[in-house]
Amino acid sequence: MKLNFRKRNIALKISYDGTNYNGFQRQNPPSVAVQNILEERLAKIFGEKIEMIGSGRTDAGVHAIGQVVNFFTDGRIAVEKIPYAASGVLPPDIVVVEAREVDRDFSALHSAKSKIYIYKILNSKILNPFLKNFAWHIRFFLDVELMQAALKIIEGTHDFSAFKAASSTNMNPVRTIYAAELFFETDELLTIKIHASGFLYHMARNIVAAAVEVGRHRLTLEDFKKIFESGERKLFPATAPAHGLYLYKVFY
Amino acid sequence: MKLNFRKRNIALKISYDGTNYNGFQRQNPPSVAVQNILEERLAKIFGEKIEMIGSGRTDAGVHAIGQVVNFFTDGRIAVEKIPYAASGVLPPDIVVVEAREVDRDFSALHSAKSKIYIYKILNSKILNPFLKNFAWHIRFFLDVELMQAALKIIEGTHDFSAFKAASSTNMNPVRTIYAAELFFETDELLTIKIHASGFLYHMARNIVAAAVEVGRHRLTLEDFKKIFESGERKLFPATAPAHGLYLYKVFY
Repeated sequence: MKLNFRKRNIALKISYDGTNYNGFQRQNPPSVAVQNILEERLAKIFGEKIEMIGSGRTDAGVHAIGQVVNFFTDGRIAVEKIPYAASGVLPPDIVVVEAREVDRDFSALHSAKSKIYIYKILNSKILNPFLKNFAWHIRFFLDVELMQAALKIIEGTHDFSAFKAASSTNMNPVRTIYAAELFFETDELLTIKIHASGFLYHMARNIVAAAVEVGRHRLTLEDFKKIFESGERKLFPATAPAHGLYLYKVFY
Repeated sequence: MKLNFRKRNIALKISYDGTNYNGFQRQNPPSVAVQNILEERLAKIFGEKIEMIGSGRTDAGVHAIGQVVNFFTDGRIAVEKIPYAASGVLPPDIVVVEAREVDRDFSALHSAKSKIYIYKILNSKILNPFLKNFAWHIRFFLDVELMQAALKIIEGTHDFSAFKAASSTNMNPVRTIYAAELFFETDELLTIKIHASGFLYHMARNIVAAAVEVGRHRLTLEDFKKIFESGERKLFPATAPAHGLYLYKVFY
């Protein structure tokens, strides 16, 4: 029996402030991604090199409350001690919230069944300096009921080509949105929450940008629906800024 | 009549994330304080050099939700336009929340009647990366009822020498605390709110540090009271970290 066979498969739930990183996915130096830091620093507590698989990328400036990764290791640290040991080696903007030993066939990427992203919008005349990296500041009046109606239109199983990044390749654009909701966290802080079977590249931020156009009365609900159904990305507005977006939860 | 006589006295309410500044009060370059940025950038919208008076200093890393400043100017911009014009020239971590024209004898410093500081504590096993610059992270169990009892003891008019900075000069150490309260913002986020006639240097952070010692059962309520009454600064623990503290409101 090879030692290799005994490696544990460890899954971690990770929360990070993405402000200072070039996204989640490992980059070639000098560019630093969250994964670079995680692999480099956690190697110290497992006593060996680590190669992680993440549930998916997040772009530069995007945050995570519940990103999931997994990796195989011979390191013997007790699983319940990992979050505390990790806090001793990680910078304070990357936190291991939870650690679990999982089945050998679990993959943070391939086993994912669905994901929730949330997007925060500060809708106020004046910026709140404490949210500068954590919400999209929109000064204009937003018609929240119209935005909610737009989000209702995209629920269900559809071709989401109209919301994919202009640059993205021709992968299957059909996804299912289980729920797309907008609610108030405070008088001025809106959250858009999207639970989907998967997200095309930039899909969450493109949905938010289009919903905001509806909220600003620059796009009617009818036109929103028409463009969505046409699948023509170029008819929708620019992508919403990265710093309002959070990978909230991955379901397995 | 000299033009000088027509200068308006403008008061601003300022909110800032103090993370990247060396405190509020103007510093000699290359050290940059919030006041340096305010004076330099707002000069552009008033068309002349500005010298501000702040309600008081805040230390490096300390935040403000309602700092107040005033200054005299010949600049003709309408007062209600100042917050919007300011947002065009200020970095996003410094925000002019409100502007008013005030009486010539108003001084943000000398007219202040009382102030509220708040202090945020994240009491959780695991850090929240989004609060890394905005709350003191304490992993240990905190006995919140004992902390509330300690805060009750310091309410009223007292000699606060036991809470003044070791380095501070022999100014009158008598202040009145109108209210010192602790409440929960969320399950894990505590706020201590102190409303006082004035604060000695480091007083708010020293009160918080001592209350935390009580909450950790490292200092009994009786000893807290004894030390407070003795006025012996050196018997109390080190100052609480700057990044949990916010100048919340100044009353005039």
